[in-house]
Amino acid sequence: MSAMRNTIRLLIACRDARGIVAAVTTFVAEQGGNLLDADQHTDPDHGEFFMRVAIERAGFALTPDTFDAAWQPVARRFDMQWSIHWGQPVKRVAILVSKHGHCLSDLLWRRRSGELDVEIPIVISNHPDTADIAREAGVPFEARPVMPGTKAAQEREVLALLAAARADVVVLARYMQVLSPDFVRHYPHRIINIHHSFLPAFAGGAPYRQAYERGVKMIGATSHYVTEQLDAGPIIAQDAAPTSHRDTIADLIRKGRDLERMVLARAVRLHVEDRILVSQNKTVVFE
Amino acid sequence: MSAMRNTIRLLIACRDARGIVAAVTTFVAEQGGNLLDADQHTDPDHGEFFMRVAIERAGFALTPDTFDAAWQPVARRFDMQWSIHWGQPVKRVAILVSKHGHCLSDLLWRRRSGELDVEIPIVISNHPDTADIAREAGVPFEARPVMPGTKAAQEREVLALLAAARADVVVLARYMQVLSPDFVRHYPHRIINIHHSFLPAFAGGAPYRQAYERGVKMIGATSHYVTEQLDAGPIIAQDAAPTSHRDTIADLIRKGRDLERMVLARAVRLHVEDRILVSQNKTVVFE
Amino acid sequence: MSAMRNTIRLLIACRDARGIVAAVTTFVAEQGGNLLDADQHTDPDHGEFFMRVAIERAGFALTPDTFDAAWQPVARRFDMQWSIHWGQPVKRVAILVSKHGHCLSDLLWRRRSGELDVEIPIVISNHPDTADIAREAGVPFEARPVMPGTKAAQEREVLALLAAARADVVVLARYMQVLSPDFVRHYPHRIINIHHSFLPAFAGGAPYRQAYERGVKMIGATSHYVTEQLDAGPIIAQDAAPTSHRDTIADLIRKGRDLERMVLARAVRLHVEDRILVSQNKTVVFE
Amino acid sequence: MSAMRNTIRLLIACRDARGIVAAVTTFVAEQGGNLLDADQHTDPDHGEFFMRVAIERAGFALTPDTFDAAWQPVARRFDMQWSIHWGQPVKRVAILVSKHGHCLSDLLWRRRSGELDVEIPIVISNHPDTADIAREAGVPFEARPVMPGTKAAQEREVLALLAAARADVVVLARYMQVLSPDFVRHYPHRIINIHHSFLPAFAGGAPYRQAYERGVKMIGATSHYVTEQLDAGPIIAQDAAPTSHRDTIADLIRKGRDLERMVLARAVRLHVEDRILVSQNKTVVFE
Repeated sequence: MSAMRNTIRLLIACRDARGIVAAVTTFVAEQGGNLLDADQHTDPDHGEFFMRVAIERAGFALTPDTFDAAWQPVARRFDMQWSIHWGQPVKRVAILVSKHGHCLSDLLWRRRSGELDVEIPIVISNHPDTADIAREAGVPFEARPVMPGTKAAQEREVLALLAAARADVVVLARYMQVLSPDFVRHYPHRIINIHHSFLPAFAGGAPYRQAYERGVKMIGATSHYVTEQLDAGPIIAQDAAPTSHRDTIADLIRKGRDLERMVLARAVRLHVEDRILVSQNKTVVFE
Repeated sequence: MSAMRNTIRLLIACRDARGIVAAVTTFVAEQGGNLLDADQHTDPDHGEFFMRVAIERAGFALTPDTFDAAWQPVARRFDMQWSIHWGQPVKRVAILVSKHGHCLSDLLWRRRSGELDVEIPIVISNHPDTADIAREAGVPFEARPVMPGTKAAQEREVLALLAAARADVVVLARYMQVLSPDFVRHYPHRIINIHHSFLPAFAGGAPYRQAYERGVKMIGATSHYVTEQLDAGPIIAQDAAPTSHRDTIADLIRKGRDLERMVLARAVRLHVEDRILVSQNKTVVFE
Repeated sequence: MSAMRNTIRLLIACRDARGIVAAVTTFVAEQGGNLLDADQHTDPDHGEFFMRVAIERAGFALTPDTFDAAWQPVARRFDMQWSIHWGQPVKRVAILVSKHGHCLSDLLWRRRSGELDVEIPIVISNHPDTADIAREAGVPFEARPVMPGTKAAQEREVLALLAAARADVVVLARYMQVLSPDFVRHYPHRIINIHHSFLPAFAGGAPYRQAYERGVKMIGATSHYVTEQLDAGPIIAQDAAPTSHRDTIADLIRKGRDLERMVLARAVRLHVEDRILVSQNKTVVFE
Repeated sequence: MSAMRNTIRLLIACRDARGIVAAVTTFVAEQGGNLLDADQHTDPDHGEFFMRVAIERAGFALTPDTFDAAWQPVARRFDMQWSIHWGQPVKRVAILVSKHGHCLSDLLWRRRSGELDVEIPIVISNHPDTADIAREAGVPFEARPVMPGTKAAQEREVLALLAAARADVVVLARYMQVLSPDFVRHYPHRIINIHHSFLPAFAGGAPYRQAYERGVKMIGATSHYVTEQLDAGPIIAQDAAPTSHRDTIADLIRKGRDLERMVLARAVRLHVEDRILVSQNKTVVFE
């Protein structure tokens, strides 16, 4: 992972045209950059072009201060939307959680093991149940319960905590509150949710119960960016596992926990390594 | 598979009670039967008990003529619904298909290879496209097109063909017509459909297009018994495969064909080996 | 899981014969037992019969004190090898580990969450690295390093610790020492190892390096009972995940960690729920 | 697939250096080429660089006659090994088979359905069993049995048939003869085999029997290029499926057939779309 700290990521979206890859990679080469990866994709339906370029930090002539001026001619030529990520400092990932601690524990463990090279400045919950998990990992924990009628106020408090923690991305690690559109607009395509079903199947509440009642032979988990529409944002990662008539709802929940942990961890890793571009409510994921 | 010809299958459903397994297996032992398999399941929500018993034909004292009388005391004691399948003659599987021949080809190949030990007495289609596939396999092919206003008449013709073919089970191998409730009632839990999505996601038409537009990261296929409600019958088997932003709809269709073939073949095998019981719109599958 | 505490498990192995299932289930019914599960399997190569019976504790007339006498007639009639497990007290699982803490963390987390209903009385390591993980979970940690020439002495110390902890089963959660045949004989089919490859591929040391050098397109993990032959004991569970040319050894290790955690946890769960019988260096796993 | 006919593929291998991607993509842009894909990979162990470029045929200024001269400056600058594939005519795939027809049937069906856009000019077998399958598909079938002492002569005949059929690639669709080193040298990295195990586990004969005897919980299939060392060539694709103690060898064979068909078809597709580069006995697969 520390390799990621020494990797500059440049993300690009623009109208498709001839010569974009040549222009971008020539620019990198002229600045002494060693190209570690260059992935691109063209959306055939909308003629949109997407690119992710990974450049070795060592040897690259430009810095955060000098990059923009040098890059402007290329960006303007193709009318690009773009962003650059210098690998350091690492991203600050705030975690929101409710009562179920398995995804939280898993993310904390992956940070500790070095697999996720991120800062986790804060864990916020509407329940006190997971306070110990955060505390043992040395991460500040803030409980902000939601009562009937206090939802808007609670969201303002959470937003203030996130701002104070300088969160780059917000991970809903089984946070069982629907965020208001206003909240979502503060972190466009920077709130990652794990939904415990194979979306679009079983959106909404109690998906394992829904799955049990429908009698499906597989259950799934879906990680997606949160948008104003519930469970309808751009999907980042999904996985599924077989079930049988022997599985009770408790069994589905047990099997599902492992799916949720894996799928959410994968989505968070893809996000913090700047491997995801969003367009038309879909993701382009450069793995 | 020929082993299946020498295996008697007894399927049982009743209220749960103590002593059912003992009563059934004692009955089998008393009749000289060698128990090859005895699977059971209790639905904890409804207190319903399900059992499948597989008995070696050799040595079993009873025959189709003498079984019922001997079995009645056990069946009555527990108020069982039950059926017995003697392995021979093998089941007669009629196939309905429209334009896409991949599932049809696959089923015909599995019969030819001996993997599916069944008779396929007829292939019926509302299009002429797959006539060659049936013909090469030596199976009678009947085209029965559907025109605006002729659907009811066409269904009557199809039912007549199925009756003449003495079909035990009807497989919809990508048959793109919705069957009327009346048609379905002729073959209760004996019509097997393959739907090209991970149900309940993307029910209805054009599921690969729906999947593409939603931007899912996996596609699926679902085999289920047909009921009067479209794509809502008891699910027999499902599988899923990963996709990415690079996949066009054509790619999803290509990947999906393999899923569909595998999932449908599995469902048909489970059915003809009498491994499926249906209750509460769900299946109990004894593999 | 607490359901498991109220479930009695009876495991049986004997020569195949007619009437075994009837005799066993009749015995259970006569003792007022409610049969929760009754799985059996016959090994066609060796004519050996295996059975697992799960009985609801409530209502069953026998106790640990009275069972044997009542059961002897059935056991003798079929010359059975058998064992009974009363669900309480739960099994005592000792964990041996070296430097890598991911499997240890995962097992501790599953116990904490209630998914694994076991006691973990001790964690023993030949390295001090994972002491904190055990300590945070409130489990005694004992370091017993291995030096050149001290292996036999260290094993004696470990055996003494295991005896003092009254371990029922020993889990090697990435314990990188080969156990001596003498050690293994103390816990026949009660030492569970996780090997980080798809055995029998890449047995021995550095399996991810071996996999990388061979250029495989999937990596795997294998959980098995430890026998005197290295990496050759009866396999309990396996899983595999796709890889590509882009994966470095570090990537294989990262992907492998998740496989190892899942596969080991599954094997431990199957063992502590008494779902595994061993014969001919293979496992019969009643899931 | 017909899209592949209109796609030019350029494959490159050379020592890693700065500016390669820029040089290649600039060249393509200067020749009016629309870049459909540009994948690259650097082997960190050997400092080797690999690239696959897909160019839309329409608009590209160069032809098979004029390409080499225009390209030489770039190729020489980086001392490249390279090849170019114009998409038309499609590749000629010869199939060698023994008694088991499932992979042969599957490949023929995929060609028929348009999924594999190739010519299949000949099927050669050392047994007559699959003659009907080839015949029904309208493909010439040649039986060339191997007797004790006639292997060398048979190989010469097969090579003559392949030469007459102008085969670009040879697919061993369960051909149960070991090819001599001399035969292999005629088609370097152009002979694709399917081995019915998860290599390197169970190399050599009777892998399903080996798997059964070892008691593995998953079986696999491996497609690889044939080299002079048996079952040791560069791996192209692998897959695996779960098994249990209930599976007889016949069940493993049945489950394995589906794995083999899928894995071989995938490898053939990757090869004919020029997505594979070989180095150090490993494959780089640009999907």
